Amino acid sequence: MAADHQQERLAPDWVVGFTEGEGCFRVSINRQPKMSTGWQVLPEFRVVQHKRNRATLQRLQKFFGAGAVVVNHDTRLELRIRKLDDLKKVVAFFEQHPLHTTKKSDFRIFAQILSMMESGEHLTHAGLDKIARLAWKMNRKVKPAYLESSETIRQRPSSSAKI
Amino acid sequence: MAADHQQERLAPDWVVGFTEGEGCFRVSINRQPKMSTGWQVLPEFRVVQHKRNRATLQRLQKFFGAGAVVVNHDTRLELRIRKLDDLKKVVAFFEQHPLHTTKKSDFRIFAQILSMMESGEHLTHAGLDKIARLAWKMNRKVKPAYLESSETIRQRPSSSAKI
Repeated sequence: MAADHQQERLAPDWVVGFTEGEGCFRVSINRQPKMSTGWQVLPEFRVVQHKRNRATLQRLQKFFGAGAVVVNHDTRLELRIRKLDDLKKVVAFFEQHPLHTTKKSDFRIFAQILSMMESGEHLTHAGLDKIARLAWKMNRKVKPAYLESSETIRQRPSSSAKI
Repeated sequence: MAADHQQERLAPDWVVGFTEGEGCFRVSINRQPKMSTGWQVLPEFRVVQHKRNRATLQRLQKFFGAGAVVVNHDTRLELRIRKLDDLKKVVAFFEQHPLHTTKKSDFRIFAQILSMMESGEHLTHAGLDKIARLAWKMNRKVKPAYLESSETIRQRPSSSAKI
């Protein structure tokens, strides 16, 4: 039924409004023995929808010229953008077309982490620590495993050693 | 921090994109002895946000020139538009600026119910029955009390009498 709309490029303001509600800027920090620090920083931009809205995710993928539409969970799909160069395009877009809601503060932290990664700060323990604390501010509910890990606690016994 | 944005009118495409994720077209049918049918049809357009985003809801209220920002639940607020004349403005807006996702089908049913109400169909049992079935299609999870009610079952024993 929306075939006629399928060809049209999404309006930038629509993408901003849709992202306020449906988009997610996220930075995970996962154990990765191959990395010099033992941890890998994985930033991603994600938009989750019921599979009924696959066409919308595909149009969004086309809009950013990036990412993949994959299964999120059960009946949900997600557009997932993970490549750093692609994420830089996403950041440039939202810098030109600012978010209005408090999602803007998540976006700012996300952009800051990406910029730190460009300078290679995620490859040092000090940088990783700073990134982990910033990431925790974004996705407040779950403390990153990195910050919970015993290695990290051993490195910074002052505050984290409290039980 | 967003003071400079507060004065600007929201972009129509932003409003469409935001509504895809955050907006809700809803029609409740409540017992109301004062009505000739014993039931009142209550259509509403609602946008729910954390109270952090009160300013965004207020801008949306200003955009539509309608509704009230009130407490939804706990830390959440909602912009709620209920007056028929205001809802007609909302419908006119989304007819001019179509939704892209499956929210569009909810919107179409909503617009159809409003138009039936304009013709006074909600004041007859037959019209009310049709509206209740349309409303159920929109908010699939909960069967309207009207359709569950014993009066209704007594009126239409053919299909509803099955247990």
